Amino acid sequence: MASSPSTAGGDLERTRSLPEALPEKVFEAVDEVEELLAGAGERAPAALVGPAREALTSEGKRLRPLLLVLCARMGDPEKGHLLRAATAIEVLHTATLIHDDIVDKAESRRGEPTTVARYGREAAITAGDYLFAEAFSELAKIGDPRLVRAFSEASEGLAAGELEQYRADGATVDVEAYLEHIRKKTAGLFKAACVAGGTLGGLSLRQIHSLATYGQALGIAFQMSDDIMDLVGKPGLMGKGIGTDLAEGTVTLPVIFALREGDAGAIRKVLAAPKPSPELLEAGIGAVLATDAVAKTEAWARGEIDAALEGLELLPDCPEREFLEVIASEVVGRDA
Amino acid sequence: MASSPSTAGGDLERTRSLPEALPEKVFEAVDEVEELLAGAGERAPAALVGPAREALTSEGKRLRPLLLVLCARMGDPEKGHLLRAATAIEVLHTATLIHDDIVDKAESRRGEPTTVARYGREAAITAGDYLFAEAFSELAKIGDPRLVRAFSEASEGLAAGELEQYRADGATVDVEAYLEHIRKKTAGLFKAACVAGGTLGGLSLRQIHSLATYGQALGIAFQMSDDIMDLVGKPGLMGKGIGTDLAEGTVTLPVIFALREGDAGAIRKVLAAPKPSPELLEAGIGAVLATDAVAKTEAWARGEIDAALEGLELLPDCPEREFLEVIASEVVGRDA
Repeated sequence: MASSPSTAGGDLERTRSLPEALPEKVFEAVDEVEELLAGAGERAPAALVGPAREALTSEGKRLRPLLLVLCARMGDPEKGHLLRAATAIEVLHTATLIHDDIVDKAESRRGEPTTVARYGREAAITAGDYLFAEAFSELAKIGDPRLVRAFSEASEGLAAGELEQYRADGATVDVEAYLEHIRKKTAGLFKAACVAGGTLGGLSLRQIHSLATYGQALGIAFQMSDDIMDLVGKPGLMGKGIGTDLAEGTVTLPVIFALREGDAGAIRKVLAAPKPSPELLEAGIGAVLATDAVAKTEAWARGEIDAALEGLELLPDCPEREFLEVIASEVVGRDA
Repeated sequence: MASSPSTAGGDLERTRSLPEALPEKVFEAVDEVEELLAGAGERAPAALVGPAREALTSEGKRLRPLLLVLCARMGDPEKGHLLRAATAIEVLHTATLIHDDIVDKAESRRGEPTTVARYGREAAITAGDYLFAEAFSELAKIGDPRLVRAFSEASEGLAAGELEQYRADGATVDVEAYLEHIRKKTAGLFKAACVAGGTLGGLSLRQIHSLATYGQALGIAFQMSDDIMDLVGKPGLMGKGIGTDLAEGTVTLPVIFALREGDAGAIRKVLAAPKPSPELLEAGIGAVLATDAVAKTEAWARGEIDAALEGLELLPDCPEREFLEVIASEVVGRDA
């Protein structure tokens, strides 16, 4: 069964080379965001410069700033505001990753030690708090409360979603709980990026609503694709090995499907083991791949993407919109 | 030496009975904030209702909402916005206390187990993050970016100050570092409360600036008074025993003074001990009290308060201003 979604969310470097008429200014903006992120790290209070700088310049995909810039440029954004907001959303994202890694006891991310692993729990809590505040501080300078609302609502969802993940470690998650969880934990910030972009671009409320739909669906599909890659590979791109979620007891959508249809015993054994052996893990992955769980998950992700693409029809026909369509298609491994 | 600052910040119940012409509406507003805080707890995502509700309704002094309401009512605030902002500042304050208690490994606060002690580190990190986001979410509904700026700048300082405290555990703090620390860690949120209040009241920039000065000085004096109480008592009011700061290795202003003038050896022994014995602690407190460190700290706090009161002269002569003056005087134990 296990079809291989060939790119999924991680592969933006390739995405960048795709549409012919890609607006150079979009990438210029993302590059400027990269510099602003480094600057934000340097600006941190002395004790936090190290953790803040490293977390902010850690080769992230910058997908959220990219989405924000693309959505904004379908209208007519003020450039300073645009760069500030695009930086702020990545700062906020970084803050949540730092705290997530404490809660999840994660030791590495993108091949590097996590903030908590390198600097300890106290510094990681504080660095996350600082970056969270920094994101809102930057937003406040733009002066549009709609952006603050989009970011803070996403943040509330992120916090709620984080604890749910932690509490779901007992393999009692069902599809509804899973969806609710990834809506908050992954899709919320994608949606906020798109809403903030549309708002800065001065788009109509209907257009912004379409972008919100797009962002949310993209985020859901992105997470599902990530779930699949945990089972079928792409370790080089994701910076983590196969079966990481499973070994950590994280119940992903394909796992939920496989628990119903396959050798639930083998899967539950991995989920329950604090540190499953390679053999146990392999048996668990095998048990999931022996079902059509991956195909079902892919189908679900495609459904989300279809809904997202439909929403984009309300937006002006321009290279930015085309690029949003490409990103969506890439996530479910259609075109690539 | 050890004079006894008879009330200091903790004693608001008594403060409430003080000025004759006290505006009843101020207390009505603070009571409404109390209800809104309870509501915010109930509104939290299911997994966080317990920790959020308990932290938000834990018999706090509500000094920051009170300051915000008093400052706002020297102008003409919109009532809904006022209540929302006053609630938000206490929600933000609560979020920082929850994270502080993780960083400080504190087991109790105001006589109750801390969130981290009761619910564990993961839930405490998440509950703090949620409440932080909730505070900004409420602020966004007011729609005035100046409030977001006041809150987020204070939050940045809080995060920076928290790690400094943690890193200063080696008793290497000097007066300047101490002042810098409490400006961020305590005074920043007092200042934000006053600035937000003045902004909502529609006061002039000069008046808001005066309120900022007042709030910052009050916060500094408040912290110094708290430092003194750690040495001379008021455990019933503070919810903690004598010598807690000293036992935890926290270098307060009187301790800095005493290290220079008194039996530094006895004091350093307590600071360095992971869990000092009662005898060691008593000797350390005795060594501080044998100097004029407490009197010096009081004098410094009075100087801060004098500057604060001077600032208030620009504000209209009204019961709210009178009350701000009373609060300031109470903090350094002048009138009571």
